[in-house]
Amino acid sequence: MSESEQLTELAKRRGFFLQTAGVYGGVAGFYTYGPAGATLKDNLEAAWRDRFVTREGHMEIDAPTVMPEPVFEASGHLDGFDDMIIECVECGASHRADHLVEDYPELDVEDAEALPTEEVAELIAEHEIACPACGASLAGEPVEEFNLMFATNIGPGSSSPGYLRPETAQGIFVEFPQLAEYARNQLPFGVAQIGKAYRNEISPRKALIRVREFTQAELEHFIDPEADEPPLERVADVTLPLYSVEQQQADDGEIQEVTVTEAIEEGIIESDWVAFYLGLAKGWYERIGVDMDRFRYRQHLPGELAHYAADCWDAEAELAGDWVEVTGFATRGSYDLDKHAEHSGEEFSVFKQYDEPITVERPTVDPEMSYLGPEFGDAAGEIVAALESLAERDPDAFDGETVTVEAGGEEYEIPVEQTGFAIEEVTESGEHVTPEVIEPSFGVGRLVYTVLAHAYEEDVVDDEERTYLSLPPELAPTTVGVFPLMDKDGLGEKAQELAGELREAGLSVTYDDAGAIGRRYRRQDEVGTPFCVTVDYETLEDGTVTVRERDSTEQARVDVDGLGAVLSALRDGEQSFGEL
Amino acid sequence: MSESEQLTELAKRRGFFLQTAGVYGGVAGFYTYGPAGATLKDNLEAAWRDRFVTREGHMEIDAPTVMPEPVFEASGHLDGFDDMIIECVECGASHRADHLVEDYPELDVEDAEALPTEEVAELIAEHEIACPACGASLAGEPVEEFNLMFATNIGPGSSSPGYLRPETAQGIFVEFPQLAEYARNQLPFGVAQIGKAYRNEISPRKALIRVREFTQAELEHFIDPEADEPPLERVADVTLPLYSVEQQQADDGEIQEVTVTEAIEEGIIESDWVAFYLGLAKGWYERIGVDMDRFRYRQHLPGELAHYAADCWDAEAELAGDWVEVTGFATRGSYDLDKHAEHSGEEFSVFKQYDEPITVERPTVDPEMSYLGPEFGDAAGEIVAALESLAERDPDAFDGETVTVEAGGEEYEIPVEQTGFAIEEVTESGEHVTPEVIEPSFGVGRLVYTVLAHAYEEDVVDDEERTYLSLPPELAPTTVGVFPLMDKDGLGEKAQELAGELREAGLSVTYDDAGAIGRRYRRQDEVGTPFCVTVDYETLEDGTVTVRERDSTEQARVDVDGLGAVLSALRDGEQSFGEL
Repeated sequence: MSESEQLTELAKRRGFFLQTAGVYGGVAGFYTYGPAGATLKDNLEAAWRDRFVTREGHMEIDAPTVMPEPVFEASGHLDGFDDMIIECVECGASHRADHLVEDYPELDVEDAEALPTEEVAELIAEHEIACPACGASLAGEPVEEFNLMFATNIGPGSSSPGYLRPETAQGIFVEFPQLAEYARNQLPFGVAQIGKAYRNEISPRKALIRVREFTQAELEHFIDPEADEPPLERVADVTLPLYSVEQQQADDGEIQEVTVTEAIEEGIIESDWVAFYLGLAKGWYERIGVDMDRFRYRQHLPGELAHYAADCWDAEAELAGDWVEVTGFATRGSYDLDKHAEHSGEEFSVFKQYDEPITVERPTVDPEMSYLGPEFGDAAGEIVAALESLAERDPDAFDGETVTVEAGGEEYEIPVEQTGFAIEEVTESGEHVTPEVIEPSFGVGRLVYTVLAHAYEEDVVDDEERTYLSLPPELAPTTVGVFPLMDKDGLGEKAQELAGELREAGLSVTYDDAGAIGRRYRRQDEVGTPFCVTVDYETLEDGTVTVRERDSTEQARVDVDGLGAVLSALRDGEQSFGEL
Repeated sequence: MSESEQLTELAKRRGFFLQTAGVYGGVAGFYTYGPAGATLKDNLEAAWRDRFVTREGHMEIDAPTVMPEPVFEASGHLDGFDDMIIECVECGASHRADHLVEDYPELDVEDAEALPTEEVAELIAEHEIACPACGASLAGEPVEEFNLMFATNIGPGSSSPGYLRPETAQGIFVEFPQLAEYARNQLPFGVAQIGKAYRNEISPRKALIRVREFTQAELEHFIDPEADEPPLERVADVTLPLYSVEQQQADDGEIQEVTVTEAIEEGIIESDWVAFYLGLAKGWYERIGVDMDRFRYRQHLPGELAHYAADCWDAEAELAGDWVEVTGFATRGSYDLDKHAEHSGEEFSVFKQYDEPITVERPTVDPEMSYLGPEFGDAAGEIVAALESLAERDPDAFDGETVTVEAGGEEYEIPVEQTGFAIEEVTESGEHVTPEVIEPSFGVGRLVYTVLAHAYEEDVVDDEERTYLSLPPELAPTTVGVFPLMDKDGLGEKAQELAGELREAGLSVTYDDAGAIGRRYRRQDEVGTPFCVTVDYETLEDGTVTVRERDSTEQARVDVDGLGAVLSALRDGEQSFGEL
């Protein structure tokens, strides 16, 4: 079995994840987290919230997954969130046209998504690329854009279309005016959301990697680009494994290990804010158990950038030989807020108060209508507008005796004294600022999969092969397995009682009395339980139990009194197992 | 303003909830939780998980919100999850036909949903009920069934319809065979899920009460109806405020206060399992701040029962004069598992091992084909099947010389000696049991709304009117507000430092230095923050701060040293404010 098949098999057997509705043959791109997986995912989300929301002092919201059409008209998803599709007339199967071109061995096309649909259709025709399902030639079939949003109707009839959100972000952007109120109109502020998002993939593949329904953890950090700087000092010395555009295009294509400070100074990372988040996130990936030898930050190639992004880096994890995006770090500029302002007619900015009101000189006009009216008739209105615009644009034009403006395609010469031109002093207390957005966007399911894949270990203990998951205790679905050596002579009751006490102490506990003790250890090893506690006959005599560590399989005798505190300290890394 | 308008206004202003996409005019039935609301909802879900999953030792899963059609064909939702709709030809508006009939003053119809559509159409025609939108008569318009599931298509084209799940429960039922494996095929076991569910309401109304997208917290408890008993001793003395069918039909219609034991003994609650959950949940409602004077358990009237439910009780909260369902406690029997078994052809049962293998007598036949074949020709096969069936059903029929069976509409008389009839002794080690399901199903959004409404208080402090939310500390979005008296002379820095320390101690902290101290207290009162800490000049001298309690507005001086522990003890109810 391949690495990913082994993991998928273990995931189903031990309750991490399985294809949804398997009893009906399942449907591609939908997965259900079993008991172990749901808890792991929950722990991962809590670790994310702790790092990127609570500790940074950001807000978190919870918006619906179904949103009405105007939201996606404005965001650009209705028009632009497409994949290229080609349908086989022989068997009716649909395929990603760009993938067919990329996968065709005789073609050296790496990023077919960036090509026009006609060109992709031509490549398919020219090389007579065959339908992967039935083998018929696809030459001559049209390549079309397929919108990846799941569509539905809100209420009866089709008058109110709705879509399953393709990203949680729009649920934040669309409420910006109210969110800015909650932040008392002070930039910078961040708004996070953890929730479901959807992409109606044409042909999903790879468990939990390319799915149709997934969980995102997104942070939208709204900043004043003129004034706000990230706290770079907090991450200055963090080393980043960078795979820049330049390195991707170089022959050796190696990853550069540079500090955040160096990356900025050498111009490898353009945005200080992106650099800050790459630094902040790196420690978090380590905390949740991503293997740093199978991790890199890759810069987007120019053709890859989303319609809104100025610069973007992906965190990528190596999975079964492929590099897979697990987070995107993007500078979205003011694109989304501008679009929603334009489409809704509402204010998507904050009023930035100056420390002191400032006085500015502002050229104004106050045209003499008793002159302009009789002189120019119907054109007078347009002339006034032209004079206002000119005064603002080029006040020096009013220096002479007359001033020339264009209105309705004709030129008019107006005596300056009839324009009421003047320079007024105006006191301004502030200005409207549309913030720019820095967005770290995490794929929760992909991170769950990565953490499992990177934790997957095999070794030999006592001449027996063993599989275990070296999950960090913070993420492991169960912290402690509690076993009676046998379920007799009161050992079961004693162990049950201990399990209850450990639960009261805030630990996640599994009780197991089924089968030989070795089998019980292996079950816990396979779900990544870091510690197991066995109650035996010695326990009844001297009040000690055996504590066993998952990775080393080392054992120690520990007093039952205070065991909860000891296990909590082990879990939180405040004590090492060797110290027991 | 009415009670609900006041709450809705406060909810928007303080970030609990607001109508989604208000900048585009919003769309009925969709709400976004703001920062305070999302945290409150998260705290409520954590309290639910603690009570109904962790402490009960149940499993929790996380299934997709989009599920393929076969799931809902089997569950009955595709055919039966309908509301009655009537459309106005004048203005095009759609309405719940049953609600029009119920709301019509001259009609005394309470449960029009239970009537056939034709009868509802007749009532509308007879009374010339008018369209609530435009006033035109709806007489003569047809009343139709409208399916409440949001429909979409999975992948390109329409060959694979999908639906947004109308309840999280189906995501559990459909994976039962695998979940039973995780439970090692031992009944009883419980599987929970917290997640989004959807109802495409025809005309949603009332903020957070009747919405189109909502969060459910459901527990499916799979039990062996022959063998499993709930641990009633844990809840025997809990008093339940019951509003039974009998009381609902009585003249006075009062709520009965009886213990769980009494309710069972007097036959008010039919199912011991439902009684157990009503008892268990009551303490939880109190814990999350539901006002017990505005709470009752109401039994479903016979016409109200869902297609799968044998007996059902709702927990109801009084909100602005209406009683609103916040939880349904249902006995679903084996309905769902039977349906999925039937539609998928898979096994939806567990094999229940007997303590000892048992020997049973089983009548069998072994017909002599060399006789039956020549004698009856093509009918022989059907005759064999009829003999097998008869032997199982009525072994005494084989007592005589001949036996008569019917096959293909004709009767055949067969000599018993040719049937190979015998009574065999068979040893059986166990049997297949299809569990029954006990389901407590909680509406998270309705509970959030209830908790807010029941916590809403107004009083007068220092001659000033005040609004505050008396939320339990476990649920409050913020536990502690930290203020510097003024942001000068180092008070701001000291307060910031203290806020950081309290966060490290695991408390949810808001720092606020904007405006007069009284305004800051009122802001925290309105989001339900139970404690506020003020750093003043005395703090710099003697290291004490003012701690203020929300509900009483009492204040105490407390040492900064150990403040985190003091506040944690206050939050967890281990210390009262008066003891400070």
